Amino acid sequence: MRQLHAQDIEDIAVGAALLGTGGGGDPHVGKLMALQAIEESGPVDLVDVSEVPDEGLIVPLAMMGAPTVLVEKVPNGEEFPRVFEALKNYLGKPVFATMPIEAGGVNSMIPLASAAKLRIPVIDADGMGRAFPELQMVTFHLAGASATPMVMTDEKGNLVLFGTISNQWTEALARSATVVMGGSAMIAIYPLTGRQVKDAAIGGIVTLAQRIGEAIRRSRIESRDPLAAVLEVTGGLRLFKGKIVDVSRKTAGGFVRGEALFEGIDDYRGKTLRLQFQNENLIAVSDGNVLASVPDLITVLDSETARPMTTEALKYGYRAVVIGIPCDARWRTPEGIETVGPRYFGYDIDYVPIEERVSREWAKGGEPA
Amino acid sequence: MRQLHAQDIEDIAVGAALLGTGGGGDPHVGKLMALQAIEESGPVDLVDVSEVPDEGLIVPLAMMGAPTVLVEKVPNGEEFPRVFEALKNYLGKPVFATMPIEAGGVNSMIPLASAAKLRIPVIDADGMGRAFPELQMVTFHLAGASATPMVMTDEKGNLVLFGTISNQWTEALARSATVVMGGSAMIAIYPLTGRQVKDAAIGGIVTLAQRIGEAIRRSRIESRDPLAAVLEVTGGLRLFKGKIVDVSRKTAGGFVRGEALFEGIDDYRGKTLRLQFQNENLIAVSDGNVLASVPDLITVLDSETARPMTTEALKYGYRAVVIGIPCDARWRTPEGIETVGPRYFGYDIDYVPIEERVSREWAKGGEPA
Repeated sequence: MRQLHAQDIEDIAVGAALLGTGGGGDPHVGKLMALQAIEESGPVDLVDVSEVPDEGLIVPLAMMGAPTVLVEKVPNGEEFPRVFEALKNYLGKPVFATMPIEAGGVNSMIPLASAAKLRIPVIDADGMGRAFPELQMVTFHLAGASATPMVMTDEKGNLVLFGTISNQWTEALARSATVVMGGSAMIAIYPLTGRQVKDAAIGGIVTLAQRIGEAIRRSRIESRDPLAAVLEVTGGLRLFKGKIVDVSRKTAGGFVRGEALFEGIDDYRGKTLRLQFQNENLIAVSDGNVLASVPDLITVLDSETARPMTTEALKYGYRAVVIGIPCDARWRTPEGIETVGPRYFGYDIDYVPIEERVSREWAKGGEPA
Repeated sequence: MRQLHAQDIEDIAVGAALLGTGGGGDPHVGKLMALQAIEESGPVDLVDVSEVPDEGLIVPLAMMGAPTVLVEKVPNGEEFPRVFEALKNYLGKPVFATMPIEAGGVNSMIPLASAAKLRIPVIDADGMGRAFPELQMVTFHLAGASATPMVMTDEKGNLVLFGTISNQWTEALARSATVVMGGSAMIAIYPLTGRQVKDAAIGGIVTLAQRIGEAIRRSRIESRDPLAAVLEVTGGLRLFKGKIVDVSRKTAGGFVRGEALFEGIDDYRGKTLRLQFQNENLIAVSDGNVLASVPDLITVLDSETARPMTTEALKYGYRAVVIGIPCDARWRTPEGIETVGPRYFGYDIDYVPIEERVSREWAKGGEPA
């Protein structure tokens, strides 16, 4: 166990937004919430997965909905005690700790803010090792855990508790409730035992996010190449460097969907990259060649600072580097690919690991292997 | 208190469908469910409002959604214990009795079927004295009661519990969940104390439904005019007699909306009547003259038997009598009219009681007053 202070929060916010592959909400909004909660209530205890008691009730907390809405509809903090209280009453058991369900600007910060406010620990783990747009896209689902009982609430005080026969039903019912609540809502989901967290969670993700954020921050102070630092910490590959020449996005049905077109610069001059997203970046295609697809991570970084850009921040004229990071091994199993592979999102291609799709030459700016 | 047996169920089903003003589902489907439950579990205790213990928990039970869907998606009976159990756990209190939330083919029968199956009494009351399409359209709402905690379940086993800041939010969230569940779902709603039932419910409605059904049945046996019998028991007025020459209806957003056009026959030859509905019949207009509107009851009866026809049963060529019945006095208050008056449903007219709109001459086939 270790304690997280303000500087840690800053670094985690940046690193988690990078792992969030464009989704998970604006890191700035989430960070302010967490920093304020820590200033009011003191530092947060971050607990390693190995330290979690087997019988403890662990409840991941997150915002559900389109990140575009999330930016303008910030939680007021009263949601935290409301969702945990409802779940405690339903399960007849107090909440031992919370944890992020995914990495992302807001959804890495919400658990930290709630933990500070309610004085409970946060587990150093999540259920994705990145961000994904739907509720069943977590390693807990692969391990057979139920998303319910799940509690949803909005900033006005409405509360809905779901108990469903499958996690796909949870996704459908909760998504529709999110839309009625105005496009985003807070959720407490996949209540787990400590044992289940040990078996199925992706451990160390908060620490990894912090290391990424720290690497970006230090490279600036030490005048080193921030992109090289990011690729080293994450084991990632450069996919492209370019200028955004077209962006389209549409918020509907509780998601933001769209694509961005990049025109190559420097080593990638003369090439283009098309990036498509559904809350998160799904697929990157350069002049007909698929460079990366879900479940591998695709993230857009500012070309100067290597700070991550969310899908809603993509704008005409921005210069960016697009990187790819191999996903957790659990997403590369047949069940993992069925749940979050390209075909689930409507792409008629097989999943091929990013290391096989992208050669060293391409990553340095040459031709595809 | 008295016991309801199979013949009583038959009569209540017919009378409630008449009070259901076209909505509330197919009386045949509901009746079969209730008859089967009584055959398996014995007669149902019908308790007068005055006999309800002040502290007893009373939970109205109903189907929510479009009646057109309800006919093809019949509950399997496992929903009854599931919703009551969830509510009991949430409130920490057993359910003393159930009651109908509205009159209608299915929604009068669901409480009887569940009561037989779970061996609890049914209160002789409802919250509308008729049927209405939305959840906040009950006298309990006018009296300040909350629709939540409310439980919704489907035949597959999904369950949602709502706790909301207003009954309009309940309607919006529950309607959307109904759509996800396939267009109809079972709900336990407006959990009330016995005291609240005494103060706010419309008492005697099950008995009234039974008297209407009995009058129609006996008039056939005794070769009397069934329409006269219905008008006598209900205090209703004849609005029209005609042949259906056009029907349009559309099921969307959890409702069925549409209209039927009647061409006058007998005393009403040369006139037309346009009837518009949203699950229930809302307004009847004859050649530009509004004859009746919500909240007064408008019901279509078979011209021979005086048996009620639901909106989904209206078909080209049917000969029918349309009648109007004055609504409960609580719907004629300013709050009542705001909640269920013609303007709420988008009609730009004031509510005028049916007795003032329709003259004795018109009811006999003459010109409007």
